[in-house]
Amino acid sequence: IRAFITELEKLRDLPAETLDGTRIEIYGNIEFPHEAALCLQNGAEGIGLYRTEFLYLGRNDLPSEEDHYQAYCEVVRIMGDRPVTIRTFDLGADKVPLQLGLEKEANPCLGLRSIRLALRYLPLFQTQLRAILRASVCGNVQIMFPMISTLAELRQAKLMLAEVMEDLAESRIPFRRDIPLGIMVEVPSVAVTIDRFLDEVDFISLGTNDLIQYTLAVDRTNRNVVNMYNATEPAVLRLIHHVIQEASRKGVPVSLCGQMSSHPLHTMLLIGLGLRKFSVAAHSILEIKKVCRSVTVQQCEALAKRALEMDHARDVQALLREQLIKLIPAFSRIM
Amino acid sequence: IRAFITELEKLRDLPAETLDGTRIEIYGNIEFPHEAALCLQNGAEGIGLYRTEFLYLGRNDLPSEEDHYQAYCEVVRIMGDRPVTIRTFDLGADKVPLQLGLEKEANPCLGLRSIRLALRYLPLFQTQLRAILRASVCGNVQIMFPMISTLAELRQAKLMLAEVMEDLAESRIPFRRDIPLGIMVEVPSVAVTIDRFLDEVDFISLGTNDLIQYTLAVDRTNRNVVNMYNATEPAVLRLIHHVIQEASRKGVPVSLCGQMSSHPLHTMLLIGLGLRKFSVAAHSILEIKKVCRSVTVQQCEALAKRALEMDHARDVQALLREQLIKLIPAFSRIM
Ligand SMILES: [Mg+2]
Ligand SMILES: [Mg+2]
Repeated sequence: IRAFITELEKLRDLPAETLDGTRIEIYGNIEFPHEAALCLQNGAEGIGLYRTEFLYLGRNDLPSEEDHYQAYCEVVRIMGDRPVTIRTFDLGADKVPLQLGLEKEANPCLGLRSIRLALRYLPLFQTQLRAILRASVCGNVQIMFPMISTLAELRQAKLMLAEVMEDLAESRIPFRRDIPLGIMVEVPSVAVTIDRFLDEVDFISLGTNDLIQYTLAVDRTNRNVVNMYNATEPAVLRLIHHVIQEASRKGVPVSLCGQMSSHPLHTMLLIGLGLRKFSVAAHSILEIKKVCRSVTVQQCEALAKRALEMDHARDVQALLREQLIKLIPAFSRIM
Repeated sequence: IRAFITELEKLRDLPAETLDGTRIEIYGNIEFPHEAALCLQNGAEGIGLYRTEFLYLGRNDLPSEEDHYQAYCEVVRIMGDRPVTIRTFDLGADKVPLQLGLEKEANPCLGLRSIRLALRYLPLFQTQLRAILRASVCGNVQIMFPMISTLAELRQAKLMLAEVMEDLAESRIPFRRDIPLGIMVEVPSVAVTIDRFLDEVDFISLGTNDLIQYTLAVDRTNRNVVNMYNATEPAVLRLIHHVIQEASRKGVPVSLCGQMSSHPLHTMLLIGLGLRKFSVAAHSILEIKKVCRSVTVQQCEALAKRALEMDHARDVQALLREQLIKLIPAFSRIM
């Protein structure tokens, strides 16, 4: 296993290119600014998901615009001219900021969370948007809205962004007006009507953690049903496939930033479903790159085709394990 | 309005046939056995959804097989040879039977509920299945599983049913071995892969209440987000359309038993999406029949086509309201 790690470390500066020359992009997911350095060190081509909830948690007051700005600039500085995708706050459900004094909900996962909270507490949202826009002139910043579920909601959020831009312009504060704007695809409604959303965004990112949860009606933190939470369920694969195909057809960049993309078990499958951009945990970058460099797209497509025809998540999982270990036996020891 | 009610009452014994001669079936939804009489009186052609949760709620012990059996026979007796679709218990979420001493869950709607509970508490499930099977020789009984989310789960439930059949056969207790078996389509995963499920059931019923909830990630009992819960959201319409089209293609009967079908606002839209079998609250039967008898399928299809192209739930709702009132002005006074 030590030899395997050494082998992986040699991949740091090599591109994630398949054996038949298809370029795969690997971005990093971060929760705290300092993690950006590790992403870069492992060869991340950008930050595909910068979670910003940490700014709100574990404190009694709300973060100031300056708190936001500093946190964003820190990462932008580390990443140089590489893209940094800042996701607006995804609070609620299991990440509840006590400062807001929110009432307890019977089903918080189906409640006032994430972008819904942002559109309810506009000053909070505006503060964050101002900071992101200000940071946009320091590097290659992108903005991403989480938990969008309807077109109306997306348009409302975009309207907010436009208003904040006007405020900044009036105050002659510099920002990038053409900052790329994207959404997480994590609510089934968006996956099912993704064609409509693609016309209104610059990029999308599949948030499989929630997408799986809502598609199967399974709370993945509930031990009573967690065994039903499977990334390889046929319905989940079909939705992912559909979203990637539609995005590719319309030429809109699509990445996948859920936990699913950080596990090498899913890499071939996802390439086969058409994914060309992974956004993964810092410590997974090298493993995912290793898989990319060991396969052909044709192999992956054949595998995805078989997987899409299967009836059960566990059969797909067994197939993925078998194929991955056949290709890279070293993985059998680490999973 | 009194005149309108009198007019509706004249429809009791007339078929729900469109102006161009397409036959629509209208079934009733019931919660308690005595409601079957009202359904019949209003001209229901069968019971499309017999909810059985009442047997478990408001008591300290569990219902016996005989309790189940009597409750089923009562409805079967009322309905004569008309189909009676008994749904196995849909407990959990907001209908929690205290007898089971279930632990509180963070998101009960995404937790151990409905068929999941049945497959966890097998003796409860077996008792109910025995009673339904015994009642199957008294009339035209159908059995329906709620909240199915994967093929594996459906197969497990069917296996249970087969086992109970074997037990009954061994004890020489009569039952109908070919009792029609169906599922609720109310979890997005099933709607998305409905083609796989259609090969394994005799009929399906769209449960829009939950389907809308999961598709949009909105708890409809949560006042913070209930404004986002809309039957006319583009994604919901697309899923309903997809399910009906696939079922029609495979010749599997499909009904819709959610609250959506009980509101005359949706009748034309649903006919236009291909629905030919409505299962509605007893007090809605005549209103729905009135709409059916006032439209052509072509009109409905044109309306559905327009609705499917719209971006916002509220635009669809406005369109539906406008069209319905143009057709039957009396409805303007009751909605
Ligand atoms: Mg999420
Ligand atoms: Mg339901």
